Amino acid sequence: MREAEISVTFRPSGKTVYVLKGTRLLEAAAGADLVLDLPCGGEGICGKCRVVVSGGACEPTPAERRAFSDEQLRRGFRLACQSSVCGPMTVEVPQTSLLPARHKILEQTAQTSPVPVDPPIRKQYVELTTPRRGDDQADLTRLEQAVGPFDADLESVRYLPGQLRRAGFRGTAVLAEERILDFEPQNTEAVNLAVAVDVGTTTLAAALLDANTGRELGVTSRLNPQTRFGDDVLSRILFARQEEHALGLLHATIVTAVNEMIRELADRTGIDRLRIYQITLSGNTTMQQLLCRVDPSSLGEVPFVPAVGRGLALQASELGLEIHPRALVRVMPVIGGFVGGDTVSGILATGLAENEGPTLLVDIGTNGEIVLSADGKLSAASTAAGPAFEGARISHGMRGANGAIEKIVVDGRLRINVIGDVPPVGLCGSGLIDVAAELLRHGLLSPEGRLQTPERLSSDVLPDLAQRLIVHDGHPAFLLASAAETGNARPVLLTQRDLRELQLATGAIRAGVEILLRRAGVDPADLKAVLIAGGFGNFIRRNNAQRIGLIPPRVAHRHIRYQGNTSLAGARLVALSRKAFVAAEELARRTEHVDLSCDPEFQTAFSEAMIFPSDVD
Amino acid sequence: MREAEISVTFRPSGKTVYVLKGTRLLEAAAGADLVLDLPCGGEGICGKCRVVVSGGACEPTPAERRAFSDEQLRRGFRLACQSSVCGPMTVEVPQTSLLPARHKILEQTAQTSPVPVDPPIRKQYVELTTPRRGDDQADLTRLEQAVGPFDADLESVRYLPGQLRRAGFRGTAVLAEERILDFEPQNTEAVNLAVAVDVGTTTLAAALLDANTGRELGVTSRLNPQTRFGDDVLSRILFARQEEHALGLLHATIVTAVNEMIRELADRTGIDRLRIYQITLSGNTTMQQLLCRVDPSSLGEVPFVPAVGRGLALQASELGLEIHPRALVRVMPVIGGFVGGDTVSGILATGLAENEGPTLLVDIGTNGEIVLSADGKLSAASTAAGPAFEGARISHGMRGANGAIEKIVVDGRLRINVIGDVPPVGLCGSGLIDVAAELLRHGLLSPEGRLQTPERLSSDVLPDLAQRLIVHDGHPAFLLASAAETGNARPVLLTQRDLRELQLATGAIRAGVEILLRRAGVDPADLKAVLIAGGFGNFIRRNNAQRIGLIPPRVAHRHIRYQGNTSLAGARLVALSRKAFVAAEELARRTEHVDLSCDPEFQTAFSEAMIFPSDVD
Repeated sequence: MREAEISVTFRPSGKTVYVLKGTRLLEAAAGADLVLDLPCGGEGICGKCRVVVSGGACEPTPAERRAFSDEQLRRGFRLACQSSVCGPMTVEVPQTSLLPARHKILEQTAQTSPVPVDPPIRKQYVELTTPRRGDDQADLTRLEQAVGPFDADLESVRYLPGQLRRAGFRGTAVLAEERILDFEPQNTEAVNLAVAVDVGTTTLAAALLDANTGRELGVTSRLNPQTRFGDDVLSRILFARQEEHALGLLHATIVTAVNEMIRELADRTGIDRLRIYQITLSGNTTMQQLLCRVDPSSLGEVPFVPAVGRGLALQASELGLEIHPRALVRVMPVIGGFVGGDTVSGILATGLAENEGPTLLVDIGTNGEIVLSADGKLSAASTAAGPAFEGARISHGMRGANGAIEKIVVDGRLRINVIGDVPPVGLCGSGLIDVAAELLRHGLLSPEGRLQTPERLSSDVLPDLAQRLIVHDGHPAFLLASAAETGNARPVLLTQRDLRELQLATGAIRAGVEILLRRAGVDPADLKAVLIAGGFGNFIRRNNAQRIGLIPPRVAHRHIRYQGNTSLAGARLVALSRKAFVAAEELARRTEHVDLSCDPEFQTAFSEAMIFPSDVD
Repeated sequence: MREAEISVTFRPSGKTVYVLKGTRLLEAAAGADLVLDLPCGGEGICGKCRVVVSGGACEPTPAERRAFSDEQLRRGFRLACQSSVCGPMTVEVPQTSLLPARHKILEQTAQTSPVPVDPPIRKQYVELTTPRRGDDQADLTRLEQAVGPFDADLESVRYLPGQLRRAGFRGTAVLAEERILDFEPQNTEAVNLAVAVDVGTTTLAAALLDANTGRELGVTSRLNPQTRFGDDVLSRILFARQEEHALGLLHATIVTAVNEMIRELADRTGIDRLRIYQITLSGNTTMQQLLCRVDPSSLGEVPFVPAVGRGLALQASELGLEIHPRALVRVMPVIGGFVGGDTVSGILATGLAENEGPTLLVDIGTNGEIVLSADGKLSAASTAAGPAFEGARISHGMRGANGAIEKIVVDGRLRINVIGDVPPVGLCGSGLIDVAAELLRHGLLSPEGRLQTPERLSSDVLPDLAQRLIVHDGHPAFLLASAAETGNARPVLLTQRDLRELQLATGAIRAGVEILLRRAGVDPADLKAVLIAGGFGNFIRRNNAQRIGLIPPRVAHRHIRYQGNTSLAGARLVALSRKAFVAAEELARRTEHVDLSCDPEFQTAFSEAMIFPSDVD
């Protein structure tokens, strides 16, 4: 019945298709092999699928009136997801409105080999024959014959028969690996959203992804609201053990926060949360267990045993995540009680296992996680660095927020850099490393960590530094900003005790590195690269971190590489690639977990590592 | 430390084991390779594990005092599951207290090749190392290393770590195929219970099984309480569509009934329902969907489409079944909307597919299901026989209960047999067939189904039969029992209309058989066997069923075999054997579903089949 159909010619391709009156341009374009970009899911919100038509376009829809001026509408601007065919027409499709070709290479923030997009969620548009006399096969069998065999849980067996009929047996099957997730009316293949979440003890970060292309549509972060139940994992584990409802409360708190982030990302990009079919959760072992409401008690006592090692595959509704209720939830595999999914993500995202030559991955935080890749073997350890790098237990310590002294340089005199355009109010981790390194360099701090007293100070010390050496509460202290500079009648000081905390934190990580290298028979000088992970890692100065011993000396600066949030990067890979999840499982399995507390040499190494290096710079 | 241990010698084997004081006899026996029978799960209730001790038995427990008289206790009678070792002793173990050897051949009620027991539930007692410094592997990994890899759902991930600790890391893993179901303290390998259920439209039957041995521990049946919502599947489907809660009500009604049967079996045998790890449900397509709360609407209209064809694997808690909450629920695969899991069970249990020569399986009921096996091919059809065989739509019809005339024989005069020691009150299906056959034989009924009027009756008709031919409401009728005989002032009659109903019912099945044979090119005379399934089938007389055309003529009586409840028998096989479920799936897949309503020859065949055969006997 070609007579009843209307010709639509697309430019620049020149392809013509014949469609029925009322067909959306989107579908007509699909007939010409043009796949339009629909970040908003074809809701007419994002304006990404704009085209220019001449000829028989139907009247603009309200969404198009919002998207374009009257003048633009007159010139033929339309949204392909909204506009329909009323008569023969020509459609100009800008390159920017098209979805990049499938199986595009995913660009990673971490320095890793590119990973082809191979999402765990598959969508397939099918037009099924409808049941009739002589064709009475079961509903799910009918669907399987079109999309291949799948597993269906009871919910799906209950839901799909009605849904197939509501959709007129034409629509898009959504499959999570071998499990059927949904059957959506019409062709929604172009909309395949996923979320990757880094569940940190202190901060949460989430990325919204187009799983068809690997493109990141948005990213957001916020403080982990569980911090009100304790700053570190141990205090939250203790709280969870306290009373019956504490675990549920910790669980609900974090789920709510993740839901808020997802809602924020959805609102910002105009996508429908029910079109998010996959979410990958990556965090330390305790955070992952709390998010899954798995009692973390055994993580709070020797020998710190996780409930489960392998990654989990759950459904969103099981955790209360407000995306598609049957969405695939992947929780990263873990290596040990204190070497969790975030570390596995880091190994995955940095491509550590494939690195040429011995390479170290260090995630500096309250827990310092260290992974060594050498001779094809992976070993990992965690050390209780304490919260010094996050500003806790430091007299004027603070997180890296507005007012934090985040950088300190001495060039003739002390210069400080403060986050935000505000007076200094405290000192954050990177500033703490800077000041310790500068004090060591300029003779105000001994390798043993003793701050000199003014009277014992060598005479060649820079006057600006010397005058900042004061006595506070009967103990030596170093003045970073005077009360006049802070403007709040309260100076910013570095005390002897603060330096002890820094020594403990640095010493713990340094000793951990030491032990891993020793066990693998690797000389620090042979390290080909040191990869620094974690948000905090991005802000530290390599030379200063080496000066205080946090990073092994004699590694060239260009081989010390910041990796950003590798937990999020790994989660992103898993959200986009089935192979990445398989790889993560394998990496977790083959990484040897070194329990430093069991290592007879650790205590000695720790004591030695407390002494700042004297032979660097 | 042999010094601290106590010797226990078992008779008649003579084996001696050394155990610590306080060890249960049960465990001591296991050390001597004696596996005791514990139908009650070692609760001291069933008394099955009785032994006779001499020497150092501890004081009898309260359970033992209940089980034995004082005299018996003095003579050394003990329950192995209760009694403990207090000093060196000898234990006499009767053969009847032992569990039959594993992998015993299962005896089937249906005539089929024996199936080795290969239950889907595996139990394995393990003693795990406990976590300690240097051994901090994840809880589930620790368990997997002992019992092999398994899948764990979120509930299990939440539950198992605590459970492992409560059990002291020693206990019995319960695995449903690759899914972990539980970890039970101590060695409970000997207790592995399963239930098989036949979910019939009218009646329910359930069997409690020992999955380790295949032994049936008990069986029960009851009316399907859904009958109050309608006698046949179509009226229940209509009810389900009526209002929102109807489906839930139908579902709850049947689940409650199944739970009651399970409770009854448990109470009777003294077993713990939480030790039932597997249940197999077999019924027609509508019953299975109602039990799973899957909307049966599409089963109520042409072309009668099931939601799902394959069998389902669910968890007991999903359906509200009160056995182990994570127990494996298997629902049988189906062939079509009216050829359901009960028929698949029948094919499986009768070994139909392996029969030599063309064989017919006929399940006579409201729906007559017919399966033909010929030349390695299976074809199945269902015909709406109507409820005549179950006594409905028959003037004085009733089910096969007390008072039902179930057998009629003419030897010089009419003789009737009534169920129970009571006067007759009605006529059930087998009696209906008998009387029709006898009336045909004695010339009171024409092949067209017309009852002779007294005046037209041939003179050589037996006087007792002739005098029973009466006129009732102006139509001819046959008197089966007079008001005096029934004692309730109400005679039992067979009317002309009753005979029409019988013709319809018989004709439908006969036409279905006809079509299946014709499609397969099988002459009725070539049939090697006719298998009769269904509870009703057991009570019909072969010659009479052949006389009225319900069973093809010219099949020797010895080749007409009653199979009993093949739906229950098939469910039992699946509960006991993983291979049986795989076989059931395969049988369902390869059986061709013949939709008789689509067959152009069916109407003709049906009209012809309405005529009773005139060339038999």
